[in-house]
Amino acid sequence: MGLPIGVTRYRAQVEYDGTNYCGFQRQRSGFSTIQGELERALTNLGQQSVSITGAGRTDSGVHALGQIISFTIEWRHSAGALERAINANLPEDIAVKYLEETTMSFHPRFDARRRSYLYRVYNEPVRSPLHRGRSWHVARRLNLGEMNKAATNLTGQKDFATFGLPPQGESTVREVFSASWHEEAPFLVFQIEANAFLYRMVRSIVGSLVAVGSGAWTADEFKTALQAQDRNRSAAAAPPQGLYLASIVYKD
Amino acid sequence: MGLPIGVTRYRAQVEYDGTNYCGFQRQRSGFSTIQGELERALTNLGQQSVSITGAGRTDSGVHALGQIISFTIEWRHSAGALERAINANLPEDIAVKYLEETTMSFHPRFDARRRSYLYRVYNEPVRSPLHRGRSWHVARRLNLGEMNKAATNLTGQKDFATFGLPPQGESTVREVFSASWHEEAPFLVFQIEANAFLYRMVRSIVGSLVAVGSGAWTADEFKTALQAQDRNRSAAAAPPQGLYLASIVYKD
Repeated sequence: MGLPIGVTRYRAQVEYDGTNYCGFQRQRSGFSTIQGELERALTNLGQQSVSITGAGRTDSGVHALGQIISFTIEWRHSAGALERAINANLPEDIAVKYLEETTMSFHPRFDARRRSYLYRVYNEPVRSPLHRGRSWHVARRLNLGEMNKAATNLTGQKDFATFGLPPQGESTVREVFSASWHEEAPFLVFQIEANAFLYRMVRSIVGSLVAVGSGAWTADEFKTALQAQDRNRSAAAAPPQGLYLASIVYKD
Repeated sequence: MGLPIGVTRYRAQVEYDGTNYCGFQRQRSGFSTIQGELERALTNLGQQSVSITGAGRTDSGVHALGQIISFTIEWRHSAGALERAINANLPEDIAVKYLEETTMSFHPRFDARRRSYLYRVYNEPVRSPLHRGRSWHVARRLNLGEMNKAATNLTGQKDFATFGLPPQGESTVREVFSASWHEEAPFLVFQIEANAFLYRMVRSIVGSLVAVGSGAWTADEFKTALQAQDRNRSAAAAPPQGLYLASIVYKD
């Protein structure tokens, strides 16, 4: 059989506001998803059914600055023209920010070496109408120093069973390269980079670190919870609207 | 008659996301407004009809970080308790950020000495899902230096008839204290402070300065348009979603 002549594989960086979607991954009809909208836009263009693959399956309400997707399509014009055509067919809460040709073997999830997420906490006494849906409002003043003291326990190759379940397979071991908080007034921003993440891992870690920042937990209690490798030892997960899939690093 | 015993006048700073409202000012029923929502929340609290006065009548889709309002209400608890009670009764796109007792004679519009607005332009090739509704997307790279060169013509006491109509009275003379652009990547931000503004003045100025930044006008053509005192000489007004009522300064 082989692929039809003129078929090309593309790699694209996608930004989206996840507020109005049931997550990234395509679901049965009746549920809007990012993947579903991207596939609809591409299928409209090519007049052929197009499937996409994404690097990360973000949850309902979670945003992305640098989701990476890949797809194969018959396209006779430039990559720039394809990018503009896709964006003209997408709703305003999803956009392709960059697009280029890639190899037929490229897989955005299997080929990814590092993924980074960021989480924004709006740490002011009163909620913000303009930052709602893009951050988690925590009214109690958080102790950045204590949160960072606890976060130092995260780096390295460790079993993160306390903070999440594996999306596939059984291993709950992941390698975290960096994890820390910094202030970008009026936000406290948590950045974490790892080879891969467990399901709910970033939100569970953020919920537990905010427990430290508010004084409910000590930094040592965070360390003990992590070492327990017990999902019941995590604090409640932070809500989705503060979480952003920031970037993906590939070997190339 | 006199006021009932226990009645107090309050001054409050209000933040809102103007996206879903037909502007600040109360209108006939069927149109959601910021004033209408604030009055509804206050009337619910006090079980008496409460009217508010605002410092600036923002247009449909325009946001505020520091709108100032004032109202008189019978309230037996602390100002802090009133602030929390109002916020619990407001929709999530409006919030009282600060509230304090004021004098019975305080009027947020007549007593204001300086008002400042800011306008955010998202100046990147591709639109941003996460910044939509909070900024104006201008794809063409704008020349910040030329925009600032043109903006220097705005300061001082001048007739701004080119850029707006008076909301009341006949005079189109206003005093602009400062007006300039700066970069806050990925945004170009315009800040302008004046004693008062004409209707549509900031958006007309921004539209005309962006014409300079994109090369459609020269900085001299901007100056000539301003000096013409002719409403037909303005470029098209910039859209509302990039505009924020930032702060109001009072004599006290």
